[in-house]
Amino acid sequence: MTQQRSEETRAKILSAAEKLFAHEGYDATGVAEICAEAGVSKGAFYHHFDSKQSVFLTLLEQWLERLDAEMERIRAGSMDGTQALVDMAAVTGGVFSDARGRLPIFLEFWTKAIHDPQVWQTVPEQFARYQRFISDLLRQGMEQSGLGEADTDSAARLVLALAIGMLVQGLVNPQETDWGKAIQDGILVLLRGLEEKSSE
Amino acid sequence: MTQQRSEETRAKILSAAEKLFAHEGYDATGVAEICAEAGVSKGAFYHHFDSKQSVFLTLLEQWLERLDAEMERIRAGSMDGTQALVDMAAVTGGVFSDARGRLPIFLEFWTKAIHDPQVWQTVPEQFARYQRFISDLLRQGMEQSGLGEADTDSAARLVLALAIGMLVQGLVNPQETDWGKAIQDGILVLLRGLEEKSSE
Repeated sequence: MTQQRSEETRAKILSAAEKLFAHEGYDATGVAEICAEAGVSKGAFYHHFDSKQSVFLTLLEQWLERLDAEMERIRAGSMDGTQALVDMAAVTGGVFSDARGRLPIFLEFWTKAIHDPQVWQTVPEQFARYQRFISDLLRQGMEQSGLGEADTDSAARLVLALAIGMLVQGLVNPQETDWGKAIQDGILVLLRGLEEKSSE
Repeated sequence: MTQQRSEETRAKILSAAEKLFAHEGYDATGVAEICAEAGVSKGAFYHHFDSKQSVFLTLLEQWLERLDAEMERIRAGSMDGTQALVDMAAVTGGVFSDARGRLPIFLEFWTKAIHDPQVWQTVPEQFARYQRFISDLLRQGMEQSGLGEADTDSAARLVLALAIGMLVQGLVNPQETDWGKAIQDGILVLLRGLEEKSSE
């Protein structure tokens, strides 16, 4: 098996598993089904992954890494932290285009996480990372926004809440509105409200 | 069986099921386990419920009804819609005190909902109801806030996003901050930002 072919096989397995987890659910999907859907042998599967669970965790990691890379790209391209937040909000609109397919895997993850202390302990750290990331951006844009140091942590919680809450609503009612724009408008409203507060 | 004793049995079953669904998961919990935990016979169980699923749906309904009643109570006690929102935010703080126990049942529900079109179709309607409720409150408080009619729907999405996003963060990191206060402060920031917008 060449290196390239091996990479292709791995990608096929991940793609097939993502599809099956989304449509059939994690528990209802076995290694045999993943192999059939991907058109690979069990031998090829176990060459790349120890178990169905390791495929699942790899999918999750990939998704989070892509999100991180996108966020870093925007931060690097922006001098102003608050403008970067608005730019980022625009990107999250893209999440909705394929989120309906990914939501199930996240729900599966959360359901498992809550019953498995080892998985659960990774969740708060994930959230704390996004909070720190947003705090840093707000701090960068502090001079422009007039936001005080002490307020950045609670402002970051607010911005993260907005993003999470819009994502959830967008997943539930994707056609209702342009959710990417709704996040962006919402962040502008929040920033305006925060500036008002600090200038009181 | 007296009426009172029958009510007690039903309550015992619901309470036992809630505990087991939360700790063991829905799939891992059987009617036999629920009966053992509740200290009731299978006969008594099937006198009250058709199946494990109907216990599950009853628990969900109860929780939503309690939430509705609490929200109506606050709306009735407040002349000003925006003030009612702030009061409501304070109440949601109480959600965190026992939410850690209820989160699993909601995740189970969502995971099931997403694989079951019949259950899934109830979810958008639930969200739409909360949006309408918030829109109504904002419209009530419109004169005070100076918020335009056209903005109330997007403002309602924003307020709901904030509540959902804070709840999710609060469930993940309950000790991090006073989440009830964070929702309340956040709603004030939002209202300030929305007023600014409409006075531009």
